[in-house]
Amino acid sequence: MRAKCSNLFRETQSRICSQLNQLDPTPFSTDTWSRPEGGGGITKIIQNGAIFEKGGVNFSEVSGMLDAEMCRKLTGKVGPEQFFATGISLVLHPQSPMIPTVHANLRYIEVGGLSWFGGGTDLTPYYLFPEDACTFHSVLKGGCDKHSKDYYPHFKKWCDEYFYLPHRGEARGVGGIFYDYLGKEDPQHLPIYLSLTESLSSILIDGYIEIVSRRKNEAYTEQQKSFQLQRRGRYVEFNLIYDRGTLFGLRTGGRIESILMSLPPEVRWEYCYEPSPGSQEAELIKVLKAPKEWVES
Amino acid sequence: MRAKCSNLFRETQSRICSQLNQLDPTPFSTDTWSRPEGGGGITKIIQNGAIFEKGGVNFSEVSGMLDAEMCRKLTGKVGPEQFFATGISLVLHPQSPMIPTVHANLRYIEVGGLSWFGGGTDLTPYYLFPEDACTFHSVLKGGCDKHSKDYYPHFKKWCDEYFYLPHRGEARGVGGIFYDYLGKEDPQHLPIYLSLTESLSSILIDGYIEIVSRRKNEAYTEQQKSFQLQRRGRYVEFNLIYDRGTLFGLRTGGRIESILMSLPPEVRWEYCYEPSPGSQEAELIKVLKAPKEWVES
Repeated sequence: MRAKCSNLFRETQSRICSQLNQLDPTPFSTDTWSRPEGGGGITKIIQNGAIFEKGGVNFSEVSGMLDAEMCRKLTGKVGPEQFFATGISLVLHPQSPMIPTVHANLRYIEVGGLSWFGGGTDLTPYYLFPEDACTFHSVLKGGCDKHSKDYYPHFKKWCDEYFYLPHRGEARGVGGIFYDYLGKEDPQHLPIYLSLTESLSSILIDGYIEIVSRRKNEAYTEQQKSFQLQRRGRYVEFNLIYDRGTLFGLRTGGRIESILMSLPPEVRWEYCYEPSPGSQEAELIKVLKAPKEWVES
Repeated sequence: MRAKCSNLFRETQSRICSQLNQLDPTPFSTDTWSRPEGGGGITKIIQNGAIFEKGGVNFSEVSGMLDAEMCRKLTGKVGPEQFFATGISLVLHPQSPMIPTVHANLRYIEVGGLSWFGGGTDLTPYYLFPEDACTFHSVLKGGCDKHSKDYYPHFKKWCDEYFYLPHRGEARGVGGIFYDYLGKEDPQHLPIYLSLTESLSSILIDGYIEIVSRRKNEAYTEQQKSFQLQRRGRYVEFNLIYDRGTLFGLRTGGRIESILMSLPPEVRWEYCYEPSPGSQEAELIKVLKAPKEWVES
């Protein structure tokens, strides 16, 4: 299972980078790294591209010891325990505020005799085009429905709950799917979750590619760019305060630059920034405060 | 004690704003706020000033219920429990990378029959002038020494340990002083800690004022400004991942904009940013990796 997953994630990384380079030919830089505690990874970064201001596609396969507290959180066991984790994760921050930011992650984890799959992908628009949210969700629903009609509605709800900033009372974006601990309680189903992971890996950024192609020539103003920088602040707040993957990585001595590649290139925090009522900006925030259904279940 | 502390912090806020306005006459905006659970505060903000790009001086006096987990962390008791907290906190982000960022906080807290003082102030330079670090520390040592020669060395060490980013292996800056839970185990000493708090409040930004006056006309390049934006990313990482005050505020339903006023106005995260060996920028990072003594104890 370890080898199957890590091969799948490695291949997915290289296919996704090719897909992205068809839109933005700026070459990815490649960092191959290893960590003293065991394992390593390949981090591919695009910076200052025509479309992508900053983006990273990271593959990793790491192992080591999990400290007592992380062990308790993840497995309920006392720990410390050996762990193995392999995954692919990506975040793309476009130049244009008309193009959303996207995040995706697929992972397979083993801790002290327990194994599970986790993952998900979510879309963070700065200007809301409902058509884009529908495209994004339809593609994900397609990937899930092949395996069970229950997955998409379940994972969509999980995503809305997970990518949420309680201190702001706002979702991070228009959601997508999120799941975790698949197979932890029912190891006999791990092969099913592997095929789900394979399906999702094959369509992981198809919806996003369609959205970028649709929006890449959209004009925008300086004021709209400034709204994007302000909203990117929320992205940073989520990743540093709440994101399980980020905190897991920092906690387990992961490679800092590969974990924090998810942070936007340029960000602004203005005190009490409030879009004017009725504006497009206020419209977005209204939707973030009340998650919607974007495709029929 | 509650009234004494909250009056002291309120007066300190208004005196500090006057001190700052002597350097940068940009008027502070004032937000007076209250929270449904009890209490409120006064947030004073300076933005786009000649010297200060963004800064806030916040006074608050709040009360309410502390949830079980926060209760356990702070007092070891099961909870939930009533709490009362009053404090002043400030963060100033200057335009010029030659002027350091400063943070200061003084607070008095009561939870379920226990009371204590906490506080501190620390300096985060972007370009290192050892003379400035000495000024900052000397003023603090002066404030502490009036009460006990033991305080400064003890609080200086505590500060180095507290304002530390384990994932970067770096201190946030050149330190200062930090202390917490004073009086929690020895309530008979609370009056002593109150006079310490009074002394510190009277000199809280005196060292910083001297440093700003010394550096405000120093020339800088665009490349030095860009190093400042990159380093401000570390400030955000510390505040959102580790800072007890920030997390306490978000957790207890504090006023978001008053808590996050500490975040810099503009920030950059570039992948694998590394200053060239031997540069002034590399010199700073070397000092952050190995805290120094800035005044003789």
